[in-house]
Amino acid sequence: MPPCQTGTVSEQARRGRPGYDRDHFLTVAVAVFNEQGYDATSVADLAGRLGVSKAALYHHFDSKEELLSVSLDRALGGLEAVLSTPEATEGTASDRLGAVLRGAVRVLVDELAHVTLLLRVRGNSPVERAALGRRRAFDQRVTALVRSAQQEGAVRADVDARVATRLVFGMVNSLVEWYRTSGPEGADQLADDVLTVALDGLRTR
Amino acid sequence: MPPCQTGTVSEQARRGRPGYDRDHFLTVAVAVFNEQGYDATSVADLAGRLGVSKAALYHHFDSKEELLSVSLDRALGGLEAVLSTPEATEGTASDRLGAVLRGAVRVLVDELAHVTLLLRVRGNSPVERAALGRRRAFDQRVTALVRSAQQEGAVRADVDARVATRLVFGMVNSLVEWYRTSGPEGADQLADDVLTVALDGLRTR
Repeated sequence: MPPCQTGTVSEQARRGRPGYDRDHFLTVAVAVFNEQGYDATSVADLAGRLGVSKAALYHHFDSKEELLSVSLDRALGGLEAVLSTPEATEGTASDRLGAVLRGAVRVLVDELAHVTLLLRVRGNSPVERAALGRRRAFDQRVTALVRSAQQEGAVRADVDARVATRLVFGMVNSLVEWYRTSGPEGADQLADDVLTVALDGLRTR
Repeated sequence: MPPCQTGTVSEQARRGRPGYDRDHFLTVAVAVFNEQGYDATSVADLAGRLGVSKAALYHHFDSKEELLSVSLDRALGGLEAVLSTPEATEGTASDRLGAVLRGAVRVLVDELAHVTLLLRVRGNSPVERAALGRRRAFDQRVTALVRSAQQEGAVRADVDARVATRLVFGMVNSLVEWYRTSGPEGADQLADDVLTVALDGLRTR
């Protein structure tokens, strides 16, 4: 971390609200990463967009990579927490699978920018590779749940559990491409729609 | 286009196979765009990866943007062609929708690198904006088909046609993230799985 500069008055005022600053800096940084790509973004770009000095940014985050790491942890931590909720740990595998899908949609909507960044990670650094590892572990736990639901007889066994998981999460993850929190579709309606299509399909019975 | 340099012997040999070169240059360029991002790739990067001079590359493509344009056209042209096949234009809307989904999976598998590039386009230039416009037009035609299938009573009407189209294409498009032509799952099996999950869902009946 670079040495702390003597800040301007407005910087010192900001430093009086460290929690606010940290969140605000993170939000803006992640928006810039999603717009122009993480690799193509410099700390100077971020400071410029925030209207603060690089030193003010370094007061809260050690590096650009720490911003990435905190953002990816928000997305992954949210998804992992879904797997620990009572709805996802008690009851039939089929009910638990429904709860996990609903929970994942909620995390995508609540942490849209962080999940968007997560889904663009390609493994270009140790931080990115660690995130990909956590994503794989999450996918494996969901795949195991799909497999249990198949064994219960509640989920069709003629589609491989791994392929089924990837297709359904492809649907869930696609929300980052088109869902806007300002849109007419609320998160609950969206979760209902995802569950309807994933579990029952488009065809009328 | 920059003036043609007098080529080396090997370049002149290459120029004797213009169709081969053009395809080969395009394939390698698109792989590099997908790896490191289109904006972050220079013509010098491409020439370096191909092991040819920039002049040899300019002999076949006017600019980096022409490579992008040709690639996006391969992906979009393939998808648009699906809408004109007999299977997608004759019969019930429900059957036509099935044919479009199956055809789209086939295009993704056959043109994986080009579709991957298409799905990463963000509208940063006129070429990218034109591609996004064609993608929107394609989506609208599929949405109209979903709506017709709803009116027939073959597709559930309790999910908005636009949301249903986006979710199902989210599933189809997710293939670019994980499908590898070398994998155990063939294109036909994959298309069957996509249709099964999209139309009938994971739940057993």
